[in-house]
Amino acid sequence: MSLKVNFKYAGELSSSDNLSAVQPEVNSAFDKLTDKTGEGSDFLGWLDLPVNYDKEEFLRIKKCAEKIRKDSEVLVVLGIGGSYLGARAAIEFVKSCNYNLLRKDTPAIYFGGNSLSSTSLSELISLVEGKDFSVNVISKSGTTTETAVAFRIFKKLIEDKYGKEEAKSRIYVTTDKKKGALKSLADAEGYEEFTVPDDVGGRYSVLTAVGLLPIAAAGLDIDLLMKGAADAREKYFVKNTDNDCLKYAALRNLLYRNGKRIEIMVSYEPSMTMWNEWLKQLFGESEGKDGKGLYPSSTVFSTDLHSMGQYIQQGVRNLFETVITVKNPIADVEIPFDEANGDGLNFIAGKTLHYVNSRAFQGTVLAHYDGQVPNILIEIEKQDEYNLGELIYFFELACAVSGYILGINPFNQPGVESYKKNMFALLGKPGYEKERDALEGRLK
Amino acid sequence: MSLKVNFKYAGELSSSDNLSAVQPEVNSAFDKLTDKTGEGSDFLGWLDLPVNYDKEEFLRIKKCAEKIRKDSEVLVVLGIGGSYLGARAAIEFVKSCNYNLLRKDTPAIYFGGNSLSSTSLSELISLVEGKDFSVNVISKSGTTTETAVAFRIFKKLIEDKYGKEEAKSRIYVTTDKKKGALKSLADAEGYEEFTVPDDVGGRYSVLTAVGLLPIAAAGLDIDLLMKGAADAREKYFVKNTDNDCLKYAALRNLLYRNGKRIEIMVSYEPSMTMWNEWLKQLFGESEGKDGKGLYPSSTVFSTDLHSMGQYIQQGVRNLFETVITVKNPIADVEIPFDEANGDGLNFIAGKTLHYVNSRAFQGTVLAHYDGQVPNILIEIEKQDEYNLGELIYFFELACAVSGYILGINPFNQPGVESYKKNMFALLGKPGYEKERDALEGRLK
Repeated sequence: MSLKVNFKYAGELSSSDNLSAVQPEVNSAFDKLTDKTGEGSDFLGWLDLPVNYDKEEFLRIKKCAEKIRKDSEVLVVLGIGGSYLGARAAIEFVKSCNYNLLRKDTPAIYFGGNSLSSTSLSELISLVEGKDFSVNVISKSGTTTETAVAFRIFKKLIEDKYGKEEAKSRIYVTTDKKKGALKSLADAEGYEEFTVPDDVGGRYSVLTAVGLLPIAAAGLDIDLLMKGAADAREKYFVKNTDNDCLKYAALRNLLYRNGKRIEIMVSYEPSMTMWNEWLKQLFGESEGKDGKGLYPSSTVFSTDLHSMGQYIQQGVRNLFETVITVKNPIADVEIPFDEANGDGLNFIAGKTLHYVNSRAFQGTVLAHYDGQVPNILIEIEKQDEYNLGELIYFFELACAVSGYILGINPFNQPGVESYKKNMFALLGKPGYEKERDALEGRLK
Repeated sequence: MSLKVNFKYAGELSSSDNLSAVQPEVNSAFDKLTDKTGEGSDFLGWLDLPVNYDKEEFLRIKKCAEKIRKDSEVLVVLGIGGSYLGARAAIEFVKSCNYNLLRKDTPAIYFGGNSLSSTSLSELISLVEGKDFSVNVISKSGTTTETAVAFRIFKKLIEDKYGKEEAKSRIYVTTDKKKGALKSLADAEGYEEFTVPDDVGGRYSVLTAVGLLPIAAAGLDIDLLMKGAADAREKYFVKNTDNDCLKYAALRNLLYRNGKRIEIMVSYEPSMTMWNEWLKQLFGESEGKDGKGLYPSSTVFSTDLHSMGQYIQQGVRNLFETVITVKNPIADVEIPFDEANGDGLNFIAGKTLHYVNSRAFQGTVLAHYDGQVPNILIEIEKQDEYNLGELIYFFELACAVSGYILGINPFNQPGVESYKKNMFALLGKPGYEKERDALEGRLK
């Protein structure tokens, strides 16, 4: 275990007295997970996933990832929401947000089917032109509009390029184990199939085939990823008062009850931008319901200290920060000495840039803390698969416990249906005729 | 002019009665801009920039951009905050968020010097390896840590590769007209120089050389960009009650006074992700002070309807959305008919994807409006330089007026100094010895 949590700059609500006062609520929330008595308890598969996963499928993921690395310059991953963010966050976290631009011996990974932008989809088509590629389509139902539209197009593209037979060996389907449009198609065509488990919701699915196949295709070590998650499970999935994960869940609720409305996920590495997006989905979709919940936001410092920094320092005092830093960077640079010293930076010549970044982090924590913004600090050893696995489990568990303390069901997302229903009606989907007329009337 | 604003789904606060009630405040804010009597009125150069700019420099920008396009496969742009976001937002808005991945006859544009991540800087060095490149360093003072450190390294790289003489013709400096470290260096070395005007703050500087040189180097038409801004100036920089820009500024304040705390900037095109970041900087840094201001956030739909969508639909009702849509997409795709219709999407076969995106937008607006989230809608004709110029001026003006209504100085950023001061002290910068001891003590 390398993950370290520091509440020293989180303000008085993190005192042991304040945390003790909510301990009964924390215990009750925790019990709902172990007893499976809480709302949404059909979706607790992620709790044991790091130790209790389908080993046969796991081997097959590695085998297919190896095949993709050998026969494809590009892997197109089609999926939206939880079928998109986890894999992208993981690949960028370990490799780089510029992964696709780098020279490498693993395929480029392009994510599609995650918007309705015709410009984006056209671009994705042009990006695979002339390249050997495979497709991983990820959808539990197979009818999610964004993903299904993109798959209609990419199925044709890959069949036109390779012929129907070879195309079959280049299409990988991650879907429901037993039913649904994509499952039927995959059975009929004989595509390689992977499972979206019934008891794991989209935003908790990164350690299933949903995340693991693209992650492995990009050359990440998925054994190490699972090991990190398993070690975090052993450490944090226990009911004791020293548990930093439960403390974090409790503290988020205390901050919320005391007027904080926005949690800013902060990192100091641009490669964690999409990781922040994953966190925003996890917390926002889990907790934002019944008129409640912290609004999740994110920044990458020091970049955003020159954009959002002013607000955080002196704007409305309804925010707090959860900051993830990296002890040992992937690469480092020494700051050169300059005879002329026009920029006045010789006082840091000979230091490494990561040292400067660490000092910027410390200085920022103190500045924001002095500006009445509580800071919860999490340090990881390095940006590798193991540390990422730890973080994933830590935050999934924290989110579930936090959601139960908040008094909502952290595993459903009823609000997501509203726009879909309207969209289907406006698109003239059979069965929505009545709604359509009403909506069209309102748009006039 | 093509920009259209629609307040129909913005809720009752956008009624003419409500807007009339704040008209005196709007007029007073507007007068502060024209009379230059408000706080920060030394920084109003951006108001007339679209018609009153340095024509000689503008021509020189185009000439240098042409040279860069001819002799460079990569342009490295070093700058942070306002010296970074505008150019990046513009290039991605018009070209693509995958601009650097696309096949093209213009150079790749890599942005650096905007963080202290040693991993990022190392990666940037590896990305230019073996490529012909030029550098545009942008810093008013020349001493901004992030940018100056990166420039120390890239100056050496480019001199090692091309020799000191040719390197001089590949380094472009955008800095103060008269003073500062970078100005002195540029004078001494004979670099091509461009000016950061004294009366234009960083976040309002995209239409100066700060933004224009990288934008032109990427092949964008900067005449068209200025034309769009000039037309928006003519339309919106007038004091009348039909002015949608002033209405928007007023409405933001009404929403804020009535408990809204978060403004979500929404787009339906992934290529507007960085544009959203530019908006966040503009509003967050301008208004987030004196314990006030709307917290700026952003989403790209429909992608984020599957992450932040749940919160927006059903979380705390302290938010509103400002949505920018595009009438005509850069590229479109027809949805193919599928005999089997397993995904059930044949009801949209033959439609274009952009049509579906437009229907998703309409359905989402109605769903969120029904969920008590006011929606302000802005439609542009297309994602080109002209429309971008319009948007830039529209939002800059709206932000300035809105800030004066809020009762703050929209042109300073005093809070940004706090982290810098701490960082310098912790790094042992001469003159900060006393602060250093105090800070080190607090970190123990």
